[in-house]
Amino acid sequence: MLYELYYWPTIPGRGEFVRLALEDAGADYIDVGREPAADGWGVAAIMRYLDGEATDRPPFAPPFLKAGDLIVSHVANILQFLGPRLEQVPEHEAARLWAHGLQLTITDFTAEVHDTHHPLGPGLYYEEQKEAAARRAVLFIRDRLPKFLQYFERLLAANPAGNAHLLGKDCSYVDLSLFHMLTGLRYAYPKTMQRLEPKLPRVATLAERIAQRPNIAAYLASERRLAFNENGVFRHYPELDQP
Amino acid sequence: MLYELYYWPTIPGRGEFVRLALEDAGADYIDVGREPAADGWGVAAIMRYLDGEATDRPPFAPPFLKAGDLIVSHVANILQFLGPRLEQVPEHEAARLWAHGLQLTITDFTAEVHDTHHPLGPGLYYEEQKEAAARRAVLFIRDRLPKFLQYFERLLAANPAGNAHLLGKDCSYVDLSLFHMLTGLRYAYPKTMQRLEPKLPRVATLAERIAQRPNIAAYLASERRLAFNENGVFRHYPELDQP
Repeated sequence: MLYELYYWPTIPGRGEFVRLALEDAGADYIDVGREPAADGWGVAAIMRYLDGEATDRPPFAPPFLKAGDLIVSHVANILQFLGPRLEQVPEHEAARLWAHGLQLTITDFTAEVHDTHHPLGPGLYYEEQKEAAARRAVLFIRDRLPKFLQYFERLLAANPAGNAHLLGKDCSYVDLSLFHMLTGLRYAYPKTMQRLEPKLPRVATLAERIAQRPNIAAYLASERRLAFNENGVFRHYPELDQP
Repeated sequence: MLYELYYWPTIPGRGEFVRLALEDAGADYIDVGREPAADGWGVAAIMRYLDGEATDRPPFAPPFLKAGDLIVSHVANILQFLGPRLEQVPEHEAARLWAHGLQLTITDFTAEVHDTHHPLGPGLYYEEQKEAAARRAVLFIRDRLPKFLQYFERLLAANPAGNAHLLGKDCSYVDLSLFHMLTGLRYAYPKTMQRLEPKLPRVATLAERIAQRPNIAAYLASERRLAFNENGVFRHYPELDQP
């Protein structure tokens, strides 16, 4: 199966959660937004789906995935769809529901990271909402960030199949997403993470191990991997990274 | 099957999306948070799951649903789980993925409604972030609210099975959730909605029809239905409801 991933071409963003799953599995996929417009790809191809020109089930926003005739939108929905196909989630229904619930917590976590630089919404640039961002970031760093990270630390400690993964004994798409979250947070909030990580040994170890998985290591070293930058979810604004 | 819904007892909030699905189907359920602590229910019962005392798969936050031994967290995950069991979603995989994607768009929409009164996050009271809220609400009303609502209006117009529902020819859990969204928005932003609704005839008609479904009408008239108030997602602050 050739998968088509539709996502903005210049940021890791939310699309990166999907890229990591496809890359770790060695799946055959096209990163549509980054392919030439001359071949019918690029941002114009994304817009044809959002406009409803190419489908009568238009997604509200990227990322979305095309798999044959199926269109699947939202990160957690895409990963739930790919999970069994890429063997990145256990078979039992209880485990799949648990994995999807965890992924939805990562969705919420991601939105809160984004809101630290856009507390007044997506309609203004960061530079137009810096004061509100500074106030939100202080609260995020003090309360929300530790709460989310300690939750995942606690789950790793409690996994009956071992501390290496969030569920079961093998790597799941949720582990890959937690890796992306940690990598993004280290980019956006380096001082804060340096302070918090000693209290999160299992989360930190999980991230190291994911980075060393052969397909992930090859991907991270490739040109397919986009660098974090100040247009995505994880942005490094030193003024927000305060204790 | 007796379902146990775990959610805060004093607000419609996000739990209401689940309550409406259970009520419309006439399902047998316990609204755990509202049952007596003396019987082992109430908020203490919710906390035992969040603390990890009652489960080794603790949810991050309510709502969550218990169905036999299964625990399902996050509104969209719960509705996806209940959908086939309550016959509130079509059978085909493509339709189920589409329904879940729409529900996740409603999740994002709900978060943005909440952020209008809490732009700096959940750690401060509204009264402590009124200025930022006023700025965010202006942008929400101008850009985001019409964008979300027109998206659903467009989907209703494009449904090949008719304008009465978002997908297929029957009422789905997504229709019930859109009803809750519209009801909540009318409570929170009455002036704004009065201005917008003439341009949203299909969304408005859907909400009228859902309210008239026998089980929903009976529920809305019952004591089980909690009134909107200023502790939930949909809050009426007249100062935010400005053109």
